[in-house]
Amino acid sequence: MHIEQLETPVAVVDLDRLTANITRFQAYLDTHGILNRPHIKTHKIPAIAHMQLAAGAVGITCQKLGEAEVMADAGIQDIFLPYNIVGEAKLARLAQLARRCTLSVTTDSGVTVQGLDAAMRQAGLVLPVLVEFDSGAKRCGVQSPEEAAQLAQLIAGSAGLRFGGLMTYPSSARAAEFAQATTALLAAAGIATERVSGGGTPQMWQAHSFAGITEHRAGMYLFGDRYTINSGALTLEECAFTVHVTVVSRPTAERGIIDGGSKTFSSDLLGQDGYGLILEYPEARITGLSEEHGTVDFTACARRPTIGERLTVVANHCCPVVNLFNQLVGVRGGVVEVTWPVAARGMLQ
Amino acid sequence: MHIEQLETPVAVVDLDRLTANITRFQAYLDTHGILNRPHIKTHKIPAIAHMQLAAGAVGITCQKLGEAEVMADAGIQDIFLPYNIVGEAKLARLAQLARRCTLSVTTDSGVTVQGLDAAMRQAGLVLPVLVEFDSGAKRCGVQSPEEAAQLAQLIAGSAGLRFGGLMTYPSSARAAEFAQATTALLAAAGIATERVSGGGTPQMWQAHSFAGITEHRAGMYLFGDRYTINSGALTLEECAFTVHVTVVSRPTAERGIIDGGSKTFSSDLLGQDGYGLILEYPEARITGLSEEHGTVDFTACARRPTIGERLTVVANHCCPVVNLFNQLVGVRGGVVEVTWPVAARGMLQ
Repeated sequence: MHIEQLETPVAVVDLDRLTANITRFQAYLDTHGILNRPHIKTHKIPAIAHMQLAAGAVGITCQKLGEAEVMADAGIQDIFLPYNIVGEAKLARLAQLARRCTLSVTTDSGVTVQGLDAAMRQAGLVLPVLVEFDSGAKRCGVQSPEEAAQLAQLIAGSAGLRFGGLMTYPSSARAAEFAQATTALLAAAGIATERVSGGGTPQMWQAHSFAGITEHRAGMYLFGDRYTINSGALTLEECAFTVHVTVVSRPTAERGIIDGGSKTFSSDLLGQDGYGLILEYPEARITGLSEEHGTVDFTACARRPTIGERLTVVANHCCPVVNLFNQLVGVRGGVVEVTWPVAARGMLQ
Repeated sequence: MHIEQLETPVAVVDLDRLTANITRFQAYLDTHGILNRPHIKTHKIPAIAHMQLAAGAVGITCQKLGEAEVMADAGIQDIFLPYNIVGEAKLARLAQLARRCTLSVTTDSGVTVQGLDAAMRQAGLVLPVLVEFDSGAKRCGVQSPEEAAQLAQLIAGSAGLRFGGLMTYPSSARAAEFAQATTALLAAAGIATERVSGGGTPQMWQAHSFAGITEHRAGMYLFGDRYTINSGALTLEECAFTVHVTVVSRPTAERGIIDGGSKTFSSDLLGQDGYGLILEYPEARITGLSEEHGTVDFTACARRPTIGERLTVVANHCCPVVNLFNQLVGVRGGVVEVTWPVAARGMLQ
């Protein structure tokens, strides 16, 4: 079936570009001796995770326990969960998961370490735990190398845990410096830092310049979107993910309404101007989204669409868009080859 | 089970408040002789639509064909689909749907009328079609009463269609004026306007002041959120929808990280300051969302939470939040009474 025959809105993956993006970044990391641990938050599809592993990824990254469970169910063996797992119910699930795959997690507090340790001791397991540090993103993470080293020592001294290394987001020169300072402190205390995990797509081609970061977690690199294109990480011609929509109204000479709104594209601007790029009308601007309508200003376009015309949109940020669809359609040369359920979608817990 | 025993993030509906909100607005519309046709885009749950109908709603409103199909499958008889249905595949589905429920749709163009007419004639049906007009929202809709009257006449002259009235969003004095002018033009041409459909939650208690609008479509009125509270449509004490999250990190004295981000709350600011109101810490500010983390600034709070503490968040805009969850939990006095799958979630087509 040709993609033009599918109803809209439909989320489309160009399979040739997907494969090329996976292969190209894997080759780059291989060249520089950096392990690849892609983040499945972008696609949430086990079959695509298996493609990344087949290309050479050492394992995958999930952000929520529920996502990791879906991936383990699909036979994925090595899962990194860079999240503070808190609360008895989640710790019990974590122990269950640790029994059936090679699992590692992160922490940034003694409270979390205590919870992890108790759960793992009760389960008779030893879990590798990495210390998350804040390298400037001002999200989770300890604030100083001293604090990181102290937490690493607490982990190393916990019977149910093993110090698994350091983790931050995103990779940067500052992150590399922080990690080196922590590693030195730990070495002086006789503790080896086996792994330093960095990540991010915008700066992914600079990963080799951040000395001491041993693995990279990128999510968007395999699909791409306006944000990653404008960051320079990939080109428009390499972008593998688009949303096909239909013009359903042309109320004025300049205005067009498409059949996708915030429940199709999300409201995530991610610093971009407008809510997406329309490939057939690059001068057009998606000025607003209500839930199921997108408002497009075609003023700058010499040619303008008619009602019923299909448009191809590059989203601002592919991750939350995928999260709004029940399935993605994989195409090659415009022909549908595969339909993937977004299996880990909505796994918020 | 008590709500505190459920893992987070969890989307919670207070059943007493839900019932009160449904009843109160129905009574208001009844008093003023306005028909109630609630918009299910907010909850997407057939059982809740049935509650609205049992309270006196004349039917429901859906925004997408796929949502309407889910509601028809659940036995709902009267469905309004205020959308331009375009393209052969969707028109075929529309005809199927029209066979099994009392359906009405909208149009704002001759092209759409032609498509609807052809599909209905082929199916041997006569579909009521309302003319959508633009009363200032600058989304879909014809631009003048003259254009509206012309389109109504085109519908009235189509063998597969019946002129069903006028529709706009949202209701306003301007909308009422536009409708009156159109109705007068049509009356002069011998065409009766049986129904004028308006809508919206923020101005819902003014619905009676918009003369000539015969039915009201509100969505958010039954749940509520920061936007509807700040618009004055309901109070914080009437808000029936919250998201429960857990503090998973306290990296600094002022900063806290919760286990819900843009994949829990959406990025929809809807004009609000910050990404939600934390009931236990009303002075706190959710300053940023990444996909699975929310960053909270507790600077203004005398007391501050510890890791593991549960927080109750009133979202900015309930509709896209519900759309991110696979299920909602209904509670009374904190005790879970029901778990509803969000059955029409992701029905983008």
